[in-house]
Amino acid sequence: MSAPTTPGAAVADLLGLVALGELLAFERMAGDARLAPDLRRRAALGEMAAAEIANYRRLADRITALGVAPQEAMAPYVAALQAYHDSTEPRDWAEAVTKAYVGDAITDDFIRQIAAALDEADRQLVLDVLHESRYAEFAAAEIRIAIDADPRVAHRLSMWARRLVGEALSQASRVATADRGALTTLIAQGERVNVEALFRQLTAAHTERMTAAGLNN
Amino acid sequence: MSAPTTPGAAVADLLGLVALGELLAFERMAGDARLAPDLRRRAALGEMAAAEIANYRRLADRITALGVAPQEAMAPYVAALQAYHDSTEPRDWAEAVTKAYVGDAITDDFIRQIAAALDEADRQLVLDVLHESRYAEFAAAEIRIAIDADPRVAHRLSMWARRLVGEALSQASRVATADRGALTTLIAQGERVNVEALFRQLTAAHTERMTAAGLNN
Repeated sequence: MSAPTTPGAAVADLLGLVALGELLAFERMAGDARLAPDLRRRAALGEMAAAEIANYRRLADRITALGVAPQEAMAPYVAALQAYHDSTEPRDWAEAVTKAYVGDAITDDFIRQIAAALDEADRQLVLDVLHESRYAEFAAAEIRIAIDADPRVAHRLSMWARRLVGEALSQASRVATADRGALTTLIAQGERVNVEALFRQLTAAHTERMTAAGLNN
Repeated sequence: MSAPTTPGAAVADLLGLVALGELLAFERMAGDARLAPDLRRRAALGEMAAAEIANYRRLADRITALGVAPQEAMAPYVAALQAYHDSTEPRDWAEAVTKAYVGDAITDDFIRQIAAALDEADRQLVLDVLHESRYAEFAAAEIRIAIDADPRVAHRLSMWARRLVGEALSQASRVATADRGALTTLIAQGERVNVEALFRQLTAAHTERMTAAGLNN
């Protein structure tokens, strides 16, 4: 298989979308840390957040190397990603860790899909920013602890997770509309990224993760 | 000079104070990033914040190695440090970077002072968590930009910086009261840490920094 030939500007836009996702996830997780029941958990969510900004820096540096200002590359996606976060403010710790768990996983699924459309160097870069599994394990463990303490929480968190996915998919269409061509370019590459298959795969992976954390899809 | 013999529990408490300072500074800076006028600056404050949580992790690991749970070591200081941040919520970007600039510098001055009372390994650890000068340079540059854009801002930010120092010193006395003996132990080491000299030195260094950023003390 020869390397895909996504144009530099389209690559910068795609990396811009991922970079902005990291930047906003960082801010929201850092803010949600206040909901933690103790300092240990508070610091743990803070560290999950900090991993996002480290990834942001790597992506921003690559965008700059492509000759594009990172904020230019990110600009088209600000409204949609901000709207996602504004419409999914966690009300307590269990909702905060569920949001981190679901949000990180959806981001990772998306990154794996777009990685296929990038050439080797950029593919490696985006695969490197995939979230470390220890963070997902921490979040899943916290969800299970919350459910063990009060089994009724499982229903509420299941509904919450469903809402998170719903809001994410709804904002994803706004991203596609706001996009300056990068996603269209990707999608046009046919067999490399199939939007329907992407959504089907995201949903299947989500169901599996919900079960792993003791939630119903 | 022989190594000071600060007891392990007192060392854990001191490191707990520094660790909590890092954890809360992380959260507040990450939250203040929203005040940034653009995404580049927003990310820059986020990265300053992330450096704090990386330091937090190193301190927490050392506290754990001393046989103390980090949250136990931090607990006595939560009320005072939280009160400092609650009473100094920045209202705009210029106030946010001024707070980062002043807060980081005072923390560093404090760390340099307590470093003298620790044995070699812990002294090196706390000196390693000193803030990188590039962050101070970024903040000072942002303050100068704000003043250049509107010279009246200099007066407002000078007053704000004075308030930050005032609140910090006021909460420092609460910290001393809440303390379980670590600071007392340090102070009792006489020539190593002199409280009056510490305050004098903090104030002199503060004046110098204010001037460097274009502010009056």
